[in-house]
Amino acid sequence: MRFTPTDYNPYDFANRRHIGPSPSEMDEMLKAVGVKSLDQLIEETIPAAIRQEEPLDWAPLAEHELLAKMRAVAAKNRVMTSLIGQGYYGTVTPPAIQRNILENPAWYTAYTPYQPEIAQGRLEALLNYQTMVADLTGLPVANASLLDEATAAAEAMTMAERSAKSKARAFFVDRNCHPQTVEVIRTRALPLGIEVIVGSPKELIPGEVFGAIFQYPGTYGHVTDFADAIDALHEAKAIAVVATDLLALCLLKSPGEMGADIAVGSAQRFGVPMGYGGPHAAFMSCRDDLKRSMPGRIVGVSIDARGNKAYRLSLQTREQHIRREKATSNVCTAQALLAVMASFYAVFHGPNGLRAIAERVHFNTVRVAEALRAAGAKVAPGAFFDTITVEVGVGQQGIMAAARHRGINLRKVGRDRVGISLDETTGEDVITRLLDAFGIHEAAPMSGDLGFPEAMLRQTPYLTHPVFHMNRAESEMMRYMRRLSDRDLALDRAMIPLGSCTMKLNAAAEMMPITWPEFGSLHPFAPANQAEGYAEAIADLSEKLCTITGYDAMSMQPNSGAQGEYAGLLTIQAYHRARGEGHRSVCLIPVSAHGTNPASAQMAGMKVVVVKSSPNGDVDVEDFREKAAAAGDTLAACMITYPSTHGVFEETVREICAITHQYGGQVYIDGANMNAMVGLVKPGEIGGDVSHLNLHKTFAIPHGGGGPGMGPIGVKAHLAPYLPGHPETGGSEGPVSAAPYGSASILLISWAYCLMMGGEGLTQATRVAILNANYIAARLRGAYPVLFMGNRGRVAHECILDTRPFAEAGVTVDDIAKRLIDNGFHAPTMSWPVAGTLMVEPTESETKAEIDRFITALLAIRAEIKAVEAGEIAAEDSPLRHAPHTVEDLVADWTRKYPREQGCFPPGAFRVDKYWPPVGRVDNVYGDRNLICICPPVESYAEAAE
Amino acid sequence: MRFTPTDYNPYDFANRRHIGPSPSEMDEMLKAVGVKSLDQLIEETIPAAIRQEEPLDWAPLAEHELLAKMRAVAAKNRVMTSLIGQGYYGTVTPPAIQRNILENPAWYTAYTPYQPEIAQGRLEALLNYQTMVADLTGLPVANASLLDEATAAAEAMTMAERSAKSKARAFFVDRNCHPQTVEVIRTRALPLGIEVIVGSPKELIPGEVFGAIFQYPGTYGHVTDFADAIDALHEAKAIAVVATDLLALCLLKSPGEMGADIAVGSAQRFGVPMGYGGPHAAFMSCRDDLKRSMPGRIVGVSIDARGNKAYRLSLQTREQHIRREKATSNVCTAQALLAVMASFYAVFHGPNGLRAIAERVHFNTVRVAEALRAAGAKVAPGAFFDTITVEVGVGQQGIMAAARHRGINLRKVGRDRVGISLDETTGEDVITRLLDAFGIHEAAPMSGDLGFPEAMLRQTPYLTHPVFHMNRAESEMMRYMRRLSDRDLALDRAMIPLGSCTMKLNAAAEMMPITWPEFGSLHPFAPANQAEGYAEAIADLSEKLCTITGYDAMSMQPNSGAQGEYAGLLTIQAYHRARGEGHRSVCLIPVSAHGTNPASAQMAGMKVVVVKSSPNGDVDVEDFREKAAAAGDTLAACMITYPSTHGVFEETVREICAITHQYGGQVYIDGANMNAMVGLVKPGEIGGDVSHLNLHKTFAIPHGGGGPGMGPIGVKAHLAPYLPGHPETGGSEGPVSAAPYGSASILLISWAYCLMMGGEGLTQATRVAILNANYIAARLRGAYPVLFMGNRGRVAHECILDTRPFAEAGVTVDDIAKRLIDNGFHAPTMSWPVAGTLMVEPTESETKAEIDRFITALLAIRAEIKAVEAGEIAAEDSPLRHAPHTVEDLVADWTRKYPREQGCFPPGAFRVDKYWPPVGRVDNVYGDRNLICICPPVESYAEAAE
Repeated sequence: MRFTPTDYNPYDFANRRHIGPSPSEMDEMLKAVGVKSLDQLIEETIPAAIRQEEPLDWAPLAEHELLAKMRAVAAKNRVMTSLIGQGYYGTVTPPAIQRNILENPAWYTAYTPYQPEIAQGRLEALLNYQTMVADLTGLPVANASLLDEATAAAEAMTMAERSAKSKARAFFVDRNCHPQTVEVIRTRALPLGIEVIVGSPKELIPGEVFGAIFQYPGTYGHVTDFADAIDALHEAKAIAVVATDLLALCLLKSPGEMGADIAVGSAQRFGVPMGYGGPHAAFMSCRDDLKRSMPGRIVGVSIDARGNKAYRLSLQTREQHIRREKATSNVCTAQALLAVMASFYAVFHGPNGLRAIAERVHFNTVRVAEALRAAGAKVAPGAFFDTITVEVGVGQQGIMAAARHRGINLRKVGRDRVGISLDETTGEDVITRLLDAFGIHEAAPMSGDLGFPEAMLRQTPYLTHPVFHMNRAESEMMRYMRRLSDRDLALDRAMIPLGSCTMKLNAAAEMMPITWPEFGSLHPFAPANQAEGYAEAIADLSEKLCTITGYDAMSMQPNSGAQGEYAGLLTIQAYHRARGEGHRSVCLIPVSAHGTNPASAQMAGMKVVVVKSSPNGDVDVEDFREKAAAAGDTLAACMITYPSTHGVFEETVREICAITHQYGGQVYIDGANMNAMVGLVKPGEIGGDVSHLNLHKTFAIPHGGGGPGMGPIGVKAHLAPYLPGHPETGGSEGPVSAAPYGSASILLISWAYCLMMGGEGLTQATRVAILNANYIAARLRGAYPVLFMGNRGRVAHECILDTRPFAEAGVTVDDIAKRLIDNGFHAPTMSWPVAGTLMVEPTESETKAEIDRFITALLAIRAEIKAVEAGEIAAEDSPLRHAPHTVEDLVADWTRKYPREQGCFPPGAFRVDKYWPPVGRVDNVYGDRNLICICPPVESYAEAAE
Repeated sequence: MRFTPTDYNPYDFANRRHIGPSPSEMDEMLKAVGVKSLDQLIEETIPAAIRQEEPLDWAPLAEHELLAKMRAVAAKNRVMTSLIGQGYYGTVTPPAIQRNILENPAWYTAYTPYQPEIAQGRLEALLNYQTMVADLTGLPVANASLLDEATAAAEAMTMAERSAKSKARAFFVDRNCHPQTVEVIRTRALPLGIEVIVGSPKELIPGEVFGAIFQYPGTYGHVTDFADAIDALHEAKAIAVVATDLLALCLLKSPGEMGADIAVGSAQRFGVPMGYGGPHAAFMSCRDDLKRSMPGRIVGVSIDARGNKAYRLSLQTREQHIRREKATSNVCTAQALLAVMASFYAVFHGPNGLRAIAERVHFNTVRVAEALRAAGAKVAPGAFFDTITVEVGVGQQGIMAAARHRGINLRKVGRDRVGISLDETTGEDVITRLLDAFGIHEAAPMSGDLGFPEAMLRQTPYLTHPVFHMNRAESEMMRYMRRLSDRDLALDRAMIPLGSCTMKLNAAAEMMPITWPEFGSLHPFAPANQAEGYAEAIADLSEKLCTITGYDAMSMQPNSGAQGEYAGLLTIQAYHRARGEGHRSVCLIPVSAHGTNPASAQMAGMKVVVVKSSPNGDVDVEDFREKAAAAGDTLAACMITYPSTHGVFEETVREICAITHQYGGQVYIDGANMNAMVGLVKPGEIGGDVSHLNLHKTFAIPHGGGGPGMGPIGVKAHLAPYLPGHPETGGSEGPVSAAPYGSASILLISWAYCLMMGGEGLTQATRVAILNANYIAARLRGAYPVLFMGNRGRVAHECILDTRPFAEAGVTVDDIAKRLIDNGFHAPTMSWPVAGTLMVEPTESETKAEIDRFITALLAIRAEIKAVEAGEIAAEDSPLRHAPHTVEDLVADWTRKYPREQGCFPPGAFRVDKYWPPVGRVDNVYGDRNLICICPPVESYAEAAE
């Protein structure tokens, strides 16, 4: 008998695991949308003129094939003991934190906590983080993380510029700052017209600067008391920034005690693997009166509708406010997941544990220094914490090779010294091997001598809050982590239909390699031949992203989408400068652009000119043409988003690009909506010169509860020479991130995603993302007006539901968002790009069943709105206004004008598996109702520009 | 300045992570207990005469040191492609299952679901498992897993003996059964007086046997229709058992369709890594009318107090019932976690996916067979699924070496054949390498020919239930797994104070290595030089366990505590036989023994003689002496538990051992309560000759929601030659498990535990376990009588609270247990060893805060009981009877005689983080209220023996 085996492929990751709707579900959805096939829908959605011709062609890998490949690639990395320091240190990630946070979808798939009622867990963890940073730095206010130490330092510079009463235009940088910090500051300063003076603190002339940054301990180890320099700065009305190290501060006098205004640094060594550069959480803390100038998110404490304590992101309006005047920060994504890890590291160890770790690191360093000195070596500095440099003269290469031979990487310092930074993981064997590399064969005794003056010894307490004095048994810690994660709603429980945020599946197989030590334990400045696995991964991912986007080169350096925009614009400006057209400065940006676009343009030294929208939401081509013509040879660039932020494939995109090129400008296409294009449209083919990709949107990096993210940029060949460089890897331009490949370790997630999906799978994902959005639009348009559709009545990968018609009855977009929590959903993006609307993006990963549950919920909400409109119940008495409902509401006496059942179990809510928010509606004391997932609308810039 | 670094060790696993109470908490607890120091408490608890003299002396490792060591040990295993088959196959664990179940404490720290209200999630998953097994085997009833395929086959034999109407005393075993299955059956049959006839099915004479087992497909690949043989057996009133393979059954006619009465096998290849032998879930299914004879647990569907569907373990009484007549099974622990994984594998793939996998495996095997035949090789059998044997004559060694050289392990079959079993992971590269080893260099084409007769092709449907037709997107699957785990209460949320079950911390660091491929992907019969890492781990763990117990040798083979008992008694019997004293058969067992003790004794062919307890709960020494004397030279052994099942260190233990030895008997000390002894008392020093250890109690293997477990046995030197052997590794005695080292991969957990704790840490854990229990006894004895204390008023590591005084008021022990759920606690062990009591064992891992929360809850419950006693509220109206309270109770109209607040938030319950049971009190239709964690009391045996 001949038998035909089924062609069903159970290992098909794209169609069996990643893409939500099953084939039969898709048939039903196509019917509801009113098309015969997926192809027809795509044809009606994406203008034929812009479709790519060649399909993406690489074959997919099954999950087990991917893991086997990843293991082979991992084996090409060589994990040595890196004593390089320079901002990156070995650390011990407590296994309970690795397993229960970093490897737990309840934590890593969560979104930024803009909806506080469903984010109390991570808000508490981030509040712990802020408390830890504030305590250790000795400054009262800290934010909930920044991208990396170098960009945090650059942010501190611009914050100093905003805050200083000095009118000077220069910023002083201690030459003992980490080299990458110095260079990122230079990059940032240049377009802003800030002069950077690098030198020894002794050379600082306070009256000439609006601020200064000192590194403490310095990159070569120096422990210096900057109190006098800071006093002098203050007398000159300048701001003092100290870049510092949290572990050192467990032993050393804090920057706050020296009088610093701002402290920055990295929390990496608090339990976050080096990961060949990241991701890690950078921190920033400041004086209380500077807090409104601080970039990034700050978690604060408020109350809910019952008066119970509730956390929220506070001071949200200040960013808009700041930008309105002078957009010197575009910070959007942060490093929430890593900040959470670092905060738990502090909770695990408490002040005594941290102090013990710091002491161990320090006294080991003293031992090494003493042993080297005893052997006749010249060791600097005189006062150090964990880092020393040794003069080795012409023996530098030899010593470094000897150390490598013993499995140790040292830091090359100048031409005649080597740097040694010890860390938490430095055991006796490492010390023995290290000294052996210097020809010292005796064991180094513990002397108990401090390596710095007694006056520098920290006397002030830290981590006095009870959370840092919890019982540290793992049972208790595990339960604390579980309780916090249970308070939150993440992708592991429900769809998160956030327009413009692309909350797709973050598959387990994609996440597994990042916690393998071969990827986690690499220092970003380790010799290249120890990182060949990373090199292969980055090269292949770059190639695939180039193929997908139609660009010729890719820079993996930017750590977020906004940073990608900024890097892309810098690249354009460098290109113009190189061609002798440095005068080009105008950047055309449609009014509908993401708020980060103009912020990035201003940071890149461009003059933003806002282009109108036509009534249908598209870019007004005539206005665009006029403004391009007006700019003429001062036109530097335009920034457009494609498909538009209104979720439409504009037919005129090629025309806009042509106009820009006609006047000598470069086209920046924002890749935020790339999930509607992969495999179907290449931005590099429709006229784009540069784009960033949000790997945490389109390419499956989880949002981590508010970061990490990655925003690599693709460019056409003519721009390739002007991509960001890095002091460790070269290049003509300055770096935008601390590490050459940004948060390198999470690039593996996007690579895994591309490998498992294959070219056709990625393309199908795009089609289904568009199907899912159009299905929602088709099902809901009878209940909610759907704004902005293409010529043929189709939306792209998201759709905008108008809730403004309900305002008359007193029902707000907030009421709808909070009522969705009762259904167990995260609200869609609110009031962006149009106030009073909900932007819904289901992504391809949601099944029809989950989407139907969401539709059921929204239809039931519409019925509740109708009851208000009909006068059956007042808005303020309705379940809409009382949403979300908590268990406390149920236990208390019920005086509501609707039944408990209706309040708690609206259609669409699970019954047995219902998600109960831990708090009722949070009182936004500061009146911030603009809880959207992207930076604020661009109109403010237009005003500011006028 | 000289500076004294703090001696605080932040990496101290024992005292910072594993042991719950902090030093200051311990001080408070000691005060409450009324002692000055921990040493004083130990002195008052453990008789000086039995204390060990030498402390355990190995140094502890920190978590990161452990993981580094484990990585080094892992690297000593060589992962090759094993095509050995013989019951173990390569499989692809879906990464989402690995991450969300196997690596998720919500699943792995759960207990056996005896309390159904807090176990609905895993009960549903196990019901899925049963459904899957029943469907695929074509038999209507399946249990929720057994230990391994070989013991499942042995269980089937005894079940057949119980059920068959035939009076024959022989059991026929198909010689095509896996060798380890044959040998485990032989081991089991011998003491039961069952004759085992091994042969070809053609040689079977139905009238001579009460049952027969056939392997399908056979161990060498044969696909045979046993329908005729089964018919003949039925005519002779004998029972037909088929050992089978779930994946094969996706393509082949089912055993049920052949008329089989019972099917057994392993679900390993459904996504559970081989793990060098286990753990995996074995399965058993049977005809409906045999279900009351089936060993193991069966999940069933019932209703809760509101009439909603609720799952529970059903037919619980049947085991007692069976044992009462004839104890031929001691099954207690099963393999719940692995059954859950296998069930999710089926849910992930559904019938189409499983069929596709089976087809792929089969057609690849056909290709290999055809290529070999085309090259002139003699390939058997004619009809096969995934396994073939090839005649290679004197070239056997050469072919096997050639394959190994290409990274492939083949099976050695006889002296002139090799066996090849393909599996799900067999890709083109493996086929190419395999054929290459035979000198075949052409690619094998796909012919589409079936490798078995068309009549054997499965025609009946399977997995028709909707759960196997869910949308299989990972988003949906991940959420399903999350929803199920959220329904359950495990150690990641609260203390599980189950007396005799030792629910201690299962630390993340201990769990990490088991999912590394170097440990997971090893075939149990791989050549020894590929498993040197395992060898090192097992040897060192054995040595440490010998040191801890005072024994001289250890067998890691037993897969559960009960199996350890059985293996220990077999060892004793083999020893007696070898000394010409095979007539010794009497086993003295105190009436207070675990129910498994007498069951194991009967299975080992011993005659159980029950010894009385004196009024204080101790063994009645005079009765013991009399019965020993009565047995005289027929005394084989005694089985005692130490400290006793009443939680007391009896002073007379040495005397009892001496009496036993005086009459030539051997002393079996049950290690269930070893957690009260580690580091303080060695059973091998106080008179024990053999003990089993429950590694899943004392040595940190998680309970997995009802398994896996491990029950290795330690013996004195004179018994060492008689420990279980194995066909693959040798030894004079038969095996008790399918694999030589039982569930080898989880031995790593216990090893990690021993390594990180260090000798002193383990000892301190024992002390603190005793402190925690005494603290509970001290705090609660004013509210609940504490039964059974030592001479000086101390309990050991658990305490027994009497609830019988409340019976008069109508309050039952069940009411208290269910009310504890409202507080977010798993109930203590109920009604064992004394009906109407609660046995509380906090373990050393619980903090004072959690223990206090438990005490608060029990004191509040006592107040509620007082209200009933005082006539303020009737028992049936009280929150005790209505417990547990669900959200449904809150949403519904409230007609109770107490407030909602009291019902739902009793003292001790979390408020924001409250655990809500998904169902109300489950209706135990079968009247089974004896929900205890161990097998039933021993009185029944005494009766049966009389």
